[in-house]
Amino acid sequence: MYKKNDFKKNIPFKKKSSINNFVKNDNKIWIIGKHPVFMALQRKRRQIFEILATKNTIDDLENFLQKNSLENLRNLVRIIDNRSIQEIVGLNQLHQGIAIFASKLSIQDQFSFLEELNNLSLQDLPNLLLLDQISDPQNVGAIMRSASAFGFKKIIFCEHNSVVENTTIVKASAGNIEFLDLVVAGNFNNLLDKLKKIGYWSFGLDSHASTTFDKIKEFKNIVLVVGSEGEGIRQLVKKNCDFLLKVETNSEVESLNVSVATAIALYEINRR
Amino acid sequence: MYKKNDFKKNIPFKKKSSINNFVKNDNKIWIIGKHPVFMALQRKRRQIFEILATKNTIDDLENFLQKNSLENLRNLVRIIDNRSIQEIVGLNQLHQGIAIFASKLSIQDQFSFLEELNNLSLQDLPNLLLLDQISDPQNVGAIMRSASAFGFKKIIFCEHNSVVENTTIVKASAGNIEFLDLVVAGNFNNLLDKLKKIGYWSFGLDSHASTTFDKIKEFKNIVLVVGSEGEGIRQLVKKNCDFLLKVETNSEVESLNVSVATAIALYEINRR
Repeated sequence: MYKKNDFKKNIPFKKKSSINNFVKNDNKIWIIGKHPVFMALQRKRRQIFEILATKNTIDDLENFLQKNSLENLRNLVRIIDNRSIQEIVGLNQLHQGIAIFASKLSIQDQFSFLEELNNLSLQDLPNLLLLDQISDPQNVGAIMRSASAFGFKKIIFCEHNSVVENTTIVKASAGNIEFLDLVVAGNFNNLLDKLKKIGYWSFGLDSHASTTFDKIKEFKNIVLVVGSEGEGIRQLVKKNCDFLLKVETNSEVESLNVSVATAIALYEINRR
Repeated sequence: MYKKNDFKKNIPFKKKSSINNFVKNDNKIWIIGKHPVFMALQRKRRQIFEILATKNTIDDLENFLQKNSLENLRNLVRIIDNRSIQEIVGLNQLHQGIAIFASKLSIQDQFSFLEELNNLSLQDLPNLLLLDQISDPQNVGAIMRSASAFGFKKIIFCEHNSVVENTTIVKASAGNIEFLDLVVAGNFNNLLDKLKKIGYWSFGLDSHASTTFDKIKEFKNIVLVVGSEGEGIRQLVKKNCDFLLKVETNSEVESLNVSVATAIALYEINRR
């Protein structure tokens, strides 16, 4: 058993304000809506600072905390009205009477990520999804939701012009972001080279490509690369892909939403 | 050539106010955003009452009108600022500095629709998409966009609890609603029976189903039936489907967005 003094020696005492200073606001996030909030609490990957509920949602919340042995979070719960939640989270989104203020998920850098992959055998390598500067949070969140459903657990973002996590993204992912590992890389071309050496084949999604998804039958260890809706994958990154694939449609011009095209690609890779 | 009097006799003169009274506001809609507006103007299926542009978008609009021989619409154009457009269209959406006030698309009833299908030979029957009480306009619009891309031109809505067209739907469809035929049916069970007699096979999308999309290889003339995200297809309608299919995922629980699951189904049917 620890004596009081041992405890003090090992873990320096922190005042509430100093904790708040330590985790900067940049590293905190409002998560809204039943699914996203419950998944975040259940997965226990985030530090929770505050839980907001209304008279209508408090019973569900209490039950959930009890069922999941999370009673220790009860002292963070505040019951307020819908309008106050809207004012606090400061967004024009559907919060469904429940919100938490929590730490953001930790993001892996490309070096520790590559080291992790290097330690795996070829047949254990997970399929990867690279998002090349997709900035629309609705699309990022929707892609995360599909990625989780089709077993793509590792999502790699570009350091520049990407948003990895915000309130809209978490909501659009329907809480599925809690099941994903997020990686940020500085240089996608460099990263693709290194992944190739590990044993990966890279497939870029491109509406102008002529190759269809039958091609992927022949390959394992796939990196799917997706660009933004208007621009697509950046030219240099595109050149670094082993193959460019397109989702077959009936239209001559690209007319699929990027999150839909990505979902179909993830579905196809997962199936084969 | 008509004489002035003939003209007067055949087409009663209408004052501007009486035209506005004739087309009720229920039958008019604000369409916002470049893609939706330009597609609506180009397809010429709507009566246009007003065109709003800003200093930044007026040149694009003028060019567009000229290229598409739509100079006759010039007198409807009003140049205002972004904020005023936002106030007029009254929505918290991205209008991109361009908006039109237009008539809604005409909606076919099930009787004339069935008559139309009855006059086609089996090999000419188009694939159909039935939306069973999907009420989220973002999802409806996203589904329309995918439907258009995968060659499903006829979308059938339920008379109750459905929204066929509003500003959000048209925006989320990225203007693809302009390429679709919209049908409203009072009773889906009755409709499915009649479609069966014509030669259709109905496939309901259901996350609890065990059959996968390989099944559809054997069939032509397909009706895809899709329900809302939480509830799925209504029980009675589900019973009336010939087969229930699911999109294969890695998760035990359904975790796909309904518009994504529908897009994958449309893609699979279109491919085979």
